[in-house]
Amino acid sequence: MEDNVVNLDEQPQLRRRSLLAAAGVLGLTGGAVAVATTTRGEPAKAAAGVTRKITIYAEALPGNQFGYGLTPGGATIPGPILEMYEGDTLEITLVNTTNQRLSIHPHGVDYSTDSDGAPFNASYNEPGQTRTYVWRSHEMTATSGRRFMPGSAGYWHYHDHAMGTDHGTGGLIKGLYGALIVRRRGDILPDKQVTVVFNDMQINNKTAPNTPMFEANLGQRVEWIAIGHGNFFHTFHLHAHRWADNRTGMLEGPSDPSQVIDNKDLNPGSSFGFQVLAGEAVGPGAWMYHCHVQSHSDTGMAGIFLVRNADGSMPPGAQEAIDRFQGHQHKAAATHVHEGSGS
Amino acid sequence: MEDNVVNLDEQPQLRRRSLLAAAGVLGLTGGAVAVATTTRGEPAKAAAGVTRKITIYAEALPGNQFGYGLTPGGATIPGPILEMYEGDTLEITLVNTTNQRLSIHPHGVDYSTDSDGAPFNASYNEPGQTRTYVWRSHEMTATSGRRFMPGSAGYWHYHDHAMGTDHGTGGLIKGLYGALIVRRRGDILPDKQVTVVFNDMQINNKTAPNTPMFEANLGQRVEWIAIGHGNFFHTFHLHAHRWADNRTGMLEGPSDPSQVIDNKDLNPGSSFGFQVLAGEAVGPGAWMYHCHVQSHSDTGMAGIFLVRNADGSMPPGAQEAIDRFQGHQHKAAATHVHEGSGS
Amino acid sequence: MEDNVVNLDEQPQLRRRSLLAAAGVLGLTGGAVAVATTTRGEPAKAAAGVTRKITIYAEALPGNQFGYGLTPGGATIPGPILEMYEGDTLEITLVNTTNQRLSIHPHGVDYSTDSDGAPFNASYNEPGQTRTYVWRSHEMTATSGRRFMPGSAGYWHYHDHAMGTDHGTGGLIKGLYGALIVRRRGDILPDKQVTVVFNDMQINNKTAPNTPMFEANLGQRVEWIAIGHGNFFHTFHLHAHRWADNRTGMLEGPSDPSQVIDNKDLNPGSSFGFQVLAGEAVGPGAWMYHCHVQSHSDTGMAGIFLVRNADGSMPPGAQEAIDRFQGHQHKAAATHVHEGSGS
Repeated sequence: MEDNVVNLDEQPQLRRRSLLAAAGVLGLTGGAVAVATTTRGEPAKAAAGVTRKITIYAEALPGNQFGYGLTPGGATIPGPILEMYEGDTLEITLVNTTNQRLSIHPHGVDYSTDSDGAPFNASYNEPGQTRTYVWRSHEMTATSGRRFMPGSAGYWHYHDHAMGTDHGTGGLIKGLYGALIVRRRGDILPDKQVTVVFNDMQINNKTAPNTPMFEANLGQRVEWIAIGHGNFFHTFHLHAHRWADNRTGMLEGPSDPSQVIDNKDLNPGSSFGFQVLAGEAVGPGAWMYHCHVQSHSDTGMAGIFLVRNADGSMPPGAQEAIDRFQGHQHKAAATHVHEGSGS
Repeated sequence: MEDNVVNLDEQPQLRRRSLLAAAGVLGLTGGAVAVATTTRGEPAKAAAGVTRKITIYAEALPGNQFGYGLTPGGATIPGPILEMYEGDTLEITLVNTTNQRLSIHPHGVDYSTDSDGAPFNASYNEPGQTRTYVWRSHEMTATSGRRFMPGSAGYWHYHDHAMGTDHGTGGLIKGLYGALIVRRRGDILPDKQVTVVFNDMQINNKTAPNTPMFEANLGQRVEWIAIGHGNFFHTFHLHAHRWADNRTGMLEGPSDPSQVIDNKDLNPGSSFGFQVLAGEAVGPGAWMYHCHVQSHSDTGMAGIFLVRNADGSMPPGAQEAIDRFQGHQHKAAATHVHEGSGS
Repeated sequence: MEDNVVNLDEQPQLRRRSLLAAAGVLGLTGGAVAVATTTRGEPAKAAAGVTRKITIYAEALPGNQFGYGLTPGGATIPGPILEMYEGDTLEITLVNTTNQRLSIHPHGVDYSTDSDGAPFNASYNEPGQTRTYVWRSHEMTATSGRRFMPGSAGYWHYHDHAMGTDHGTGGLIKGLYGALIVRRRGDILPDKQVTVVFNDMQINNKTAPNTPMFEANLGQRVEWIAIGHGNFFHTFHLHAHRWADNRTGMLEGPSDPSQVIDNKDLNPGSSFGFQVLAGEAVGPGAWMYHCHVQSHSDTGMAGIFLVRNADGSMPPGAQEAIDRFQGHQHKAAATHVHEGSGS
């Protein structure tokens, strides 16, 4: 573990990116909250103990939707990307500005029952109430048999677990979700980050052509966090880019056995992440990302990843592709009986 | 391989657990049959040749259900957890006490066509008939290119493959299934084991609040074996615990690339397993496990993992959570059209 | 990387197999196009630059279906298996002999927007038109943090992306798909190859008992490429054989953490591959492969993997099993409401 900490110190250019993230510069979808801290000169274990306090506002949005935000009036769907290093703690003060019972429930990290965010554990905010949830994290720990119990690092997510029903599954469909990243020290930090949530038959609660267009310049390191919610099965596909089906999306070396993929199941409650170099080996252009379930793609689960030239200018043909996308017919779902749908 | 055998000998405390398992002490859901044997002083290959003979009874249960059991009248849903080490053989004498054609078909292990358990290979028990099925297993073997053909180790399962239809898919829905574990020598043995089967819209053929409540004391090593059956897609989620998405659920070391997850697809015919230290980094309490498909959770695919204090006493709030769970409304499935359902 | 190239040179028996593949001898389902080349004496990087030009014909087939083929009048469903090594380039001249707009879109490899195969990028063949698509590939490349950006190696696939709808999803259901393999130098080459495509409720656009029967002799190394398409979720299960859930299906060594499986999700747009030694540890016989979703298997998503004796003769009982399979009742799908189906 200790050498990972050294790695981080040896990569000041990556540290800078993290500071940019902390300043809210990076996020394409909501602001990113990076909680990286300087650890130089401290022992590894002690370093793994930074506590960051943030406030999140749960707010009603137009169209009977709801969102999380870092400032009053700043709620977005998805909510902000929250980040921490293994060993760090996030203390989240959740302000419920709505007239609904709701909560915030994280995947992957450590929490006591009173931070579970589930009605089952009486862990939620009543309408108008403010409540603090504590998310801790830890590094891997040695166990017998020369193996290690996993640490918290991963591309996780958070969501409401209290709205609408006894089990609290009513807030997900309305937009109360976001990405949560726990990094190992030494992990490569990205230049840009995007959150893609397949939520029932929508992407980030939108349908094409209104789905998000993510933009990057050629060669920029773009981190994708993909999250599934709702009642349907989906497969996430990105054109012209690929990633290793493991923790980071990169290979540890020639003997890393991970399959390299460009299409992955993205089902309710699951999440994964990876980093690509925008346009690597393919060049700039307008590339599609979409659900590869045929009827889901037809009915609007598709969007654009626009890779600009390295200097930020538009590559030839890209605007025409975007215009075409805007004009495409997205068949009404009414002609299909979709799996699990009550509509 | 040989060093794994040495490992096993060096872990007498783990061997003891296995002996407990053999005595039927471990299983939370049905009895566990551990077939570990002492291998000290034998060459590794010779050691990998123990044959264990067991009798399994397939029996009718109330409510038009069926189960497997290790004693007459002892059938359960799911059936007993069967265990072996790579290289061992299980000779299963299946006694069919029912008036239906049925069989036992394993995943992962080695069997000849006459132990296939499929009508296709005329491998089944007629009503009242007794028949022996032989399941063998093997360690990984070197092949060209410095790679290895996989051995049999894994969290597998067994099930009927002969009831009801020509393809023999009628017994699964009625409860004829169970977990099968093949371990590598040196694998860490658990303190407790639980089998969770997502079978159509039920867990172990039950719906909340009647789904199983699994119990462990803080820090106990609990092995989960998750199995999917039926016609629906599902995702298994466990609150406040996580595992590596690999063979054991643990990491081989810092360069093990496996993603760490707390939510995983659990679709028909698939299985996986992992070990957690109950309440590790989160403390005791009543934690939910559930299908994360929203409507599946709402309609009763949820249960409780009760982590007691280390001394076995109830932690604060746990009983209240259990009471709340018992009183929760589980919406009737009738308001949903679920995928693949004929009901 | 360099030692992988040396490996390849050290395995002349495997090279011969590849040449057989190039001669069209190997493919069980359509012809295989192997584009391996002799690299002895060349530096590794230079070796990774072979360009192969092939012509593919997209043709109408009976029953309102379409297929890809390597010769005029030679279209099959699935299309031919296309192979390349990391670093190689395939220049595909696609001849559209049909009266429909169509294209060829690959997964995994590198292509510019004009080879995207999507209407979105105006990349398709009008009826009767001939157009060239260029697919490149690359080896893994070192990045910061001692990690590697993944190379192109994988069990991928290609398919039409322009027929029928604005998004071009109409050709998949009609048969315009096939397997694409990118190998690392040093990868083990198979004796036989089979492509299995779960496309809506069919296998290779057929239903049992008309699904393909794949044949091999005991001990032959058979490479399976499994591909998912359509609107349904599926799980691929093969009796009596198993594989590692990683890039090759084999283990890199005792510390390779990959789960070994015999059942895997096979959802739209996904693909995976693995090699088995036919009948390894189980012997010859007629073995089933099928979708493990219960109702999908019942309604005809099942087929036979016939493992003959080593000398090619029929093992006892195999013909009887095949006859039984032919006579089995496959329930009409009409009694089920399947997920996502409008039928």
